[in-house]
Amino acid sequence: MPSYRPSITELFNIKLPIVQAGMIWVSGGKLAAAAAEAGCLGLVGAGSMQPAMLKHHLELAASLTKKPFGVNIPLLYSKVQEQIDVALAAGVRIFFTSAGSPKTWTSFLKDRGCIVVHVTSSPELAVKCEAAGCDAIVAEGFEAGGHNGRDEITTLTLIPQVADAVRIPVIAAGGIADGRGMAAALALGAHGVQMGSRFVATAESSAHPKFKQAIIDAGAGSTMLSLKELVPVRLLKNHFYEQVAALEQRCATKEELTVLLGKGRAKLGMFDGDLDEGELEIGQIAGLIHDAPTVAELVSRLTTEYEHAVKNTPLSLRRD
Amino acid sequence: MPSYRPSITELFNIKLPIVQAGMIWVSGGKLAAAAAEAGCLGLVGAGSMQPAMLKHHLELAASLTKKPFGVNIPLLYSKVQEQIDVALAAGVRIFFTSAGSPKTWTSFLKDRGCIVVHVTSSPELAVKCEAAGCDAIVAEGFEAGGHNGRDEITTLTLIPQVADAVRIPVIAAGGIADGRGMAAALALGAHGVQMGSRFVATAESSAHPKFKQAIIDAGAGSTMLSLKELVPVRLLKNHFYEQVAALEQRCATKEELTVLLGKGRAKLGMFDGDLDEGELEIGQIAGLIHDAPTVAELVSRLTTEYEHAVKNTPLSLRRD
Repeated sequence: MPSYRPSITELFNIKLPIVQAGMIWVSGGKLAAAAAEAGCLGLVGAGSMQPAMLKHHLELAASLTKKPFGVNIPLLYSKVQEQIDVALAAGVRIFFTSAGSPKTWTSFLKDRGCIVVHVTSSPELAVKCEAAGCDAIVAEGFEAGGHNGRDEITTLTLIPQVADAVRIPVIAAGGIADGRGMAAALALGAHGVQMGSRFVATAESSAHPKFKQAIIDAGAGSTMLSLKELVPVRLLKNHFYEQVAALEQRCATKEELTVLLGKGRAKLGMFDGDLDEGELEIGQIAGLIHDAPTVAELVSRLTTEYEHAVKNTPLSLRRD
Repeated sequence: MPSYRPSITELFNIKLPIVQAGMIWVSGGKLAAAAAEAGCLGLVGAGSMQPAMLKHHLELAASLTKKPFGVNIPLLYSKVQEQIDVALAAGVRIFFTSAGSPKTWTSFLKDRGCIVVHVTSSPELAVKCEAAGCDAIVAEGFEAGGHNGRDEITTLTLIPQVADAVRIPVIAAGGIADGRGMAAALALGAHGVQMGSRFVATAESSAHPKFKQAIIDAGAGSTMLSLKELVPVRLLKNHFYEQVAALEQRCATKEELTVLLGKGRAKLGMFDGDLDEGELEIGQIAGLIHDAPTVAELVSRLTTEYEHAVKNTPLSLRRD
């Protein structure tokens, strides 16, 4: 019987090697607390929050669970320092950083007794994370929602190469939304998984109900990595996406794309529910998501699906 | 103990659920026979062969093995009818078709007692393959070398959605080059795997030694899906790729791309070994390939790696 690899669960003191991704506009204190209560690591997504709003959501999460939770801070936004200060003051000691260099904040956070995990999209960056002192990495593939690496390395090819490149635990992300995907990630050498899109379509996420329904309605080919001239992001195909694609089709300038994008497009789509003009960031695995259960129901199902997937993977390839 | 799913091995009468992909310029009779001798399904890649050359390679394979082998026929080239006639006359009864509609040839081949497998890049096309009477499908993701679907669906997200959509066996392709990838594919619901890039870098492939070395030297981000305006194809980054990328960067016309591509670029690179000006079609998983063993050595290693990967995948996610 295979022995259990405890690194992620011991690192975060959680029951299941599942991280609920910190995302913009959809993952507040309610979702993070629900994920924590279900045995996962819940993350509050700071990217879309002013410091005062982040403080509110961290206090909300703490009021809903006594289990550990963390915060995701994308390093590309302003007010990173203030967000980190707010989180430290609120007692958070688990930080996921992304969209920047692991050198910038890892030492600062480690000096304050924190666990630091950085998000990578290549084996080369994974090595830099390890050298910077990160406790673990999220290795996120091309199929993920949100911001993606420019080399377009998919999760299936990324995970084994990252697992070969570093000794710290690897959390696989991008393209995982059921127990089969979790089993695949662990077979590839990951120590746990991070899921984003799957948690967007839950009762406790802050996504607008119309956005949740759009995810449920999505098919395998309903998303496309877009806005590569600015910062690559995976979009659910809608009227806004079609406008972006039309500009990209004729090699529009960065300025034209920036003007079209404007301000507040992601909030408009993901939080306010404008499915036509909003920017709908979501992973390619949306095609596999068919409902919006509670987090507790989802996690129970994931563990059952996982066990089924592993039981159905033969121990040997040979017929004879 | 998990029970073995025999569908692919029984369908083709082989020992291991591994298909050696039929590719242009690299997979002749020698490679197909070596794969067959090692317990896999070997395929002669007809795409780059005139009918007389195809006849030669099928006879060569038959002279080297008594085990079953098949042929891959891309439906986008001319002389498809002649290639099929040559293969039938040579006694081949296993046909993999790709790059076209499964409706075109499946009935014709089934009426002649053949096993027919079509290559798909989406769940929707998989359903059409089943309806057309195919015995199995290859579901091939964005990370694959060669020609790829326009929706850029990765293997990790494609396989479970295809497995849910059809009842016929699913062969996973794209991004698989070791036992971890094979275990992941089977956990996702595939019944077997097809590997291309991994078999290009073997002693028995017809790839030029310089091309094999370029694969060994490749990293995780060394390829890019290119020529999307013509037919999307994944290229190893070299001088020719840089020229393509420069044209695409300025939205060059299809005509300009066609002129740059010219004739014989793939042969020049993959068979003749011109690493600068040749078109080097290869999968993203090239980054995980570090040597060019014999097929027998490779397959022995794959089975060991697979068993190791499955043993290291815990049966349950819960710590307690």
